Amino acid sequence: MVDILHRVGVKTSSPEKVYEALTTLEGLAGWWTDDTTGNPEVGGVIEFRFPPGGFDMKVLELKPSERVVWEVVGGPDEWVGTTVEWDLRQDDDLTIVLFKHKGWKEPVEFMHHCSTKWGTYMVSLKSLVETGEGAPSPRDVRIAFPD
Amino acid sequence: MVDILHRVGVKTSSPEKVYEALTTLEGLAGWWTDDTTGNPEVGGVIEFRFPPGGFDMKVLELKPSERVVWEVVGGPDEWVGTTVEWDLRQDDDLTIVLFKHKGWKEPVEFMHHCSTKWGTYMVSLKSLVETGEGAPSPRDVRIAFPD
Repeated sequence: MVDILHRVGVKTSSPEKVYEALTTLEGLAGWWTDDTTGNPEVGGVIEFRFPPGGFDMKVLELKPSERVVWEVVGGPDEWVGTTVEWDLRQDDDLTIVLFKHKGWKEPVEFMHHCSTKWGTYMVSLKSLVETGEGAPSPRDVRIAFPD
Repeated sequence: MVDILHRVGVKTSSPEKVYEALTTLEGLAGWWTDDTTGNPEVGGVIEFRFPPGGFDMKVLELKPSERVVWEVVGGPDEWVGTTVEWDLRQDDDLTIVLFKHKGWKEPVEFMHHCSTKWGTYMVSLKSLVETGEGAPSPRDVRIAFPD
């Protein structure tokens, strides 16, 4: 089992705005993909769609301003059954976001791609909270045309 | 042992320009840090410096247009002894860059940070080759002020 790890520090006075960006359809659409629908409550499933496909995330855990956990219940074979964990903490004027996409079976080439792409979306999330503007799909950073 | 993985596709007709960007002081300075000095030959050590510190990389392997391997021989404790591997291959009009920073002892918080930061430098490398302009330190993408 191998994991994708990331970390950003978001300039904001409390973790609330980051938490909102991870737990509301409007927030998620602001940094990951315009096409975000579904039920963002615990036990609900959020559907994220991109031009080449998408991911269905079941919300496993929501701890306000501290932690969000999703399980991938639909999407590419390599993703299904993996989990995505977000941990937040305040450090002076930064909300530190620790990200883990856990449980990949093998470090396949697609995992390399997803690691880099997640990194660009972390920067998008940071930008959304700091400036009001993220770079969600289809206006996302392209790392290997057309993806 | 845990690894940082990344992948980008660089729009260019052959891997030569990417290989140059990974194996010459001028190329490395174009996407990673302005302050790049040392000996980029096999057995040599390249010194990369950033405002908060730096890394010394011993060049272990150079296979033109295919593969570059460095061993970290100086820098933060978590980095020393790890290896950085670059594999290149051509796929139509893209040079596919597979990156591995291997051999981290533990998935510490600093590893999360370095993973995201490497991702931004992968995009910088891609941009350098495609447009002639990368985003090396100190003009790099900041992911957690001031880093």
